[in-house]
Amino acid sequence: MYLRSWLSRLCRGLSSPVGRTTPPGWGSLSRNVVLSSHRRIPELSSFVVRTNTCGELCSSHLGQEVTLCGWIQYRRQNIFLVLRDFHGLVQVVIPQDESSASVKKILCEAPLESVVKVSGIVISRPPGQENPKTEALRLQYRYLDLRSFQMQYNLRLRSEMVMKIREYLCNLHGFVDVETPTLFKRTPGGAKEFLVPSREPGKFYSLPQSPQQFKQLLMVGGLDRYFQVARCYRDEGSRPDRQPEFTQIDIEMSFVDQTGIQSLIEGLLQYSWPKDKEPIMIPFPSMTFAEALTTYGTDKPDTRFGMKIVDISDVFRKTEIRFLQDALSKPQGTVKAICVHEGAKYLKRKDIESIRQFATDHFNQEVLPIFLKANRNWNSTVAKFIMEEQRLELARLMETQEEDVVLLTAGEHKKACSLLGKLRLECANLLEMRGVVLRDPKLFSFLWVVNFPLFLPKEENPTELESAHHPFTAPHPSDIHLLYTEPKKVRSQHYDLVLNGSEIGGGSIRIHDAELQRYILATLLKEDVKLLSHLLQALDYGAPPHGGIALGLDRLMCLVAGAPSIRDVIAFPKSFRGHDLMSNAPDSVPPEELKPYHIQVSWPTDSEAEKSSLNQSHHLEN
Amino acid sequence: MYLRSWLSRLCRGLSSPVGRTTPPGWGSLSRNVVLSSHRRIPELSSFVVRTNTCGELCSSHLGQEVTLCGWIQYRRQNIFLVLRDFHGLVQVVIPQDESSASVKKILCEAPLESVVKVSGIVISRPPGQENPKTEALRLQYRYLDLRSFQMQYNLRLRSEMVMKIREYLCNLHGFVDVETPTLFKRTPGGAKEFLVPSREPGKFYSLPQSPQQFKQLLMVGGLDRYFQVARCYRDEGSRPDRQPEFTQIDIEMSFVDQTGIQSLIEGLLQYSWPKDKEPIMIPFPSMTFAEALTTYGTDKPDTRFGMKIVDISDVFRKTEIRFLQDALSKPQGTVKAICVHEGAKYLKRKDIESIRQFATDHFNQEVLPIFLKANRNWNSTVAKFIMEEQRLELARLMETQEEDVVLLTAGEHKKACSLLGKLRLECANLLEMRGVVLRDPKLFSFLWVVNFPLFLPKEENPTELESAHHPFTAPHPSDIHLLYTEPKKVRSQHYDLVLNGSEIGGGSIRIHDAELQRYILATLLKEDVKLLSHLLQALDYGAPPHGGIALGLDRLMCLVAGAPSIRDVIAFPKSFRGHDLMSNAPDSVPPEELKPYHIQVSWPTDSEAEKSSLNQSHHLEN
Repeated sequence: MYLRSWLSRLCRGLSSPVGRTTPPGWGSLSRNVVLSSHRRIPELSSFVVRTNTCGELCSSHLGQEVTLCGWIQYRRQNIFLVLRDFHGLVQVVIPQDESSASVKKILCEAPLESVVKVSGIVISRPPGQENPKTEALRLQYRYLDLRSFQMQYNLRLRSEMVMKIREYLCNLHGFVDVETPTLFKRTPGGAKEFLVPSREPGKFYSLPQSPQQFKQLLMVGGLDRYFQVARCYRDEGSRPDRQPEFTQIDIEMSFVDQTGIQSLIEGLLQYSWPKDKEPIMIPFPSMTFAEALTTYGTDKPDTRFGMKIVDISDVFRKTEIRFLQDALSKPQGTVKAICVHEGAKYLKRKDIESIRQFATDHFNQEVLPIFLKANRNWNSTVAKFIMEEQRLELARLMETQEEDVVLLTAGEHKKACSLLGKLRLECANLLEMRGVVLRDPKLFSFLWVVNFPLFLPKEENPTELESAHHPFTAPHPSDIHLLYTEPKKVRSQHYDLVLNGSEIGGGSIRIHDAELQRYILATLLKEDVKLLSHLLQALDYGAPPHGGIALGLDRLMCLVAGAPSIRDVIAFPKSFRGHDLMSNAPDSVPPEELKPYHIQVSWPTDSEAEKSSLNQSHHLEN
Repeated sequence: MYLRSWLSRLCRGLSSPVGRTTPPGWGSLSRNVVLSSHRRIPELSSFVVRTNTCGELCSSHLGQEVTLCGWIQYRRQNIFLVLRDFHGLVQVVIPQDESSASVKKILCEAPLESVVKVSGIVISRPPGQENPKTEALRLQYRYLDLRSFQMQYNLRLRSEMVMKIREYLCNLHGFVDVETPTLFKRTPGGAKEFLVPSREPGKFYSLPQSPQQFKQLLMVGGLDRYFQVARCYRDEGSRPDRQPEFTQIDIEMSFVDQTGIQSLIEGLLQYSWPKDKEPIMIPFPSMTFAEALTTYGTDKPDTRFGMKIVDISDVFRKTEIRFLQDALSKPQGTVKAICVHEGAKYLKRKDIESIRQFATDHFNQEVLPIFLKANRNWNSTVAKFIMEEQRLELARLMETQEEDVVLLTAGEHKKACSLLGKLRLECANLLEMRGVVLRDPKLFSFLWVVNFPLFLPKEENPTELESAHHPFTAPHPSDIHLLYTEPKKVRSQHYDLVLNGSEIGGGSIRIHDAELQRYILATLLKEDVKLLSHLLQALDYGAPPHGGIALGLDRLMCLVAGAPSIRDVIAFPKSFRGHDLMSNAPDSVPPEELKPYHIQVSWPTDSEAEKSSLNQSHHLEN
């Protein structure tokens, strides 16, 4: 049947259930959707009667006439219905005017799950209804969404994989599953910890971001091998693809070193890896933090594809190109580039423009594109300033071929690397939009990143130090002497586990010497040691050398399942803004129920309220 | 060596680690200690040089001179040390006066773990230091306590048993382990739910007491078989042997009935039962709520021993004993009794006195003791009013023998049963104090209690109804028609699992019909259905018949391990008052850290503060 009607968009920021009702072949597309927020997938509506998918509609479609095909998922009163396709959901406003009586009749009488084609103009929600409603309808009717094949598959896959992880730790390696408290005490600088008012005036528990202190105390307590599938809490306000509560596979061992932990985790992942996925190879490759930054411009490189950053400073020592001269004349000054293979074929002018714009806006850096044409001519504003031997040297260093595009920038080492690291991913997005598959979704590329710095200069005051990870991380054995002379140069025994460009785990060997811990907390970090006196005291009572790791289970499952968002591997996730859209949590509480906790609400002034609502709408853009 | 010194009591309300460093033989004693708060264990200090154990000292010993033997566990500065024996901990104040210089020298130089005998006067903590310090020192130095054999055994036993439970559910029966949120919304009447302020002014999450709503929604979502080892939260202020956060084995199944759940749990416990314990027999016996009340005076009978309540009303229909006449003349009036076998041998006059006092204080009931002497004479104030045939009938009904004591009371059925149920347990305590073993600690006596009432009259307003358990409990199939006529008479499909007199689990078949659920919530319970609209709406979308159960893991492990308190099967438990004595949680939070949550502390007035501190000290008595 055919209906003329009005559409209004409900599911902005929705983690689109792409491929949900379609063959696995769509999987690759579904993952691409979330890799870049700029992406469209025009292919999805080619050759068919629809103009768009339900899932792709967004504010940029407002006012356009579109045609959608899908199933009637839900109808409320006789006012609107929800249309579903494999890509997402859209609310369809049922026309109430006399002239559309027949349409209304059909719409209101059609059984749910009827397949319909709908044409109409895209409008935004009626004023006043945006806030609660602009978040995903999928979350509001989660119990229906859970019936979908994909959610059933994801939740069962998660359950099975966690069970295998437990078998590996408990049954094969004698780990003890110990539950640690979640009603704890605020940790120094625990700004992201939720508070829980107690019945004692002015006293609060806090929900810890991890069982870090408890698991170290368990080692002091002689538990030897601890693990827990631990619920953790982090209050980051609104952030995309983050949840206020999340789960980590939390592990701690006594008398272990870094390689011991790494082997344990490699064995754990291999043992628990789903049978219906490509088996994984162990041991995982390892890379230093410095190398990751220099080669990929990030501490979590996606090693499924190359496009590595190359330092070409030496090629341009005697260049006449002004901004390269300037850069090289400075300390730490470098010239670096990435080579986008076949970029000349796939990258459009406007792509390059947006890339250069991005570099200026976010890094205040200039990016120089060089197109290597089939005719062997270099097409670039500076081509004429690059001598033949420089070209040859460049081609040798970067293994350039015809039809490649070289993106070149100059500046301070870290900054240039970070920029090119971002451009590398953006170029991968652009190429994949044009059908080039760089990142095989079936491929799982693990990587250990090691030798992080122990300290970083504080952002607000670079003369002071803060822990790169947490203050219990042990220094690298060969750098300990530097603690007392050049602490900034000290490397740590921290390690990150990276999968396909996402950090899925991190851990470290801990400090087990009370004196060293005190020195780092009090002298180097200027922390109030009183807040950690219980831990320091415990170290005084004979602490074994120990270390551990935590794997982010939600993120890991998201990658293993090939899901667009972690919300697709969590039964009842919160929205971007931390709302439970099904039950409407968080919710108001009558003042008398606050009394026992000796707190009262301090209502913000109008101006504050305005500001916070602005922030919230801003967050929705994420 | 011998020292004279001063003692001050630290560990009042301590869950004494009885038997910790002693052979298993002590196990039975260790359990008795916590069965009654009135208990002393004089045997523990017979035949030896000490007058008391560290663990038994309490306020009633203040001012007494005592002699203790034990190990030096800890020394702080040179001011006090902590003496440990198998029973508990005591703080020993090191004398600072010149005359005791030699004593001080020895005390301060003796290595930790030295064995010492200490004599001194019991004093209470110096003023101002009571509050934090009167709670267990064991909790403050938990990481040391964890090294004890018993804690290592308990935590490893717990880990292994939970692993077996998971194998049974996941691997053998296809259950899906699903994590549900702990940041949820306040449930109707959720007065015991902790609040978590959000960054939205006036909006709060709450920490749920169970995943009840989520597990039902998972059934609506077609998960079919769910389980979770779920962290739950209950804010009950200070209560003995309760924890603000606790763990339950949470289970829900679709298309199941009561017997299905019961068989599942029986199989689960048998499969996961520790190999080093007596194997358990299944199926477990079952008893109706009415029968449990009538026979044991409680809904969680300890079926390891008899001493059952017998209704002897008919014996006294024509009695001349006044208070029996009065009782029987009233509606619901009954005469009931328990028979304490060999009571005449073991119960002292003062025992009987305290029993009668208890009956008067707590039940406003008279209790009549009858001693059946070896000389066949009955020794009782009313003996002469009891005719021969009454004696014979009584002897027949109660299977009395010489040397027994019959405790007789008269009054309204429920009240009389409850009183005798309490006396039954108290008599068991008294007999066991005298060396009679009634409750074999190696014995595990499981019992299903079924057919609870669906509703109870509200305490504050008996004309209104409240759910006996929770409003989602399905009515007994054969009583549904009564819902609309005599709801008070409706039995539920709720079931409790009882082990050795403790409730270790409870569950029910749920209502899956939205209309019935609405009727019960709105019409019978007068609840605001808006707060549960998401659940009611879910039931409208095709909910399968479903039911489930939750086992209290802490309580279960406590009984399995034969531990004196649930704190002995939890790695980092809170004190009675919900404090983490190790890290000092809950703690103060600077006002600026409250700002993001739009709350401020409302400090109580002096009088309120006084009141609350009184409550707190009262709680310590528990």
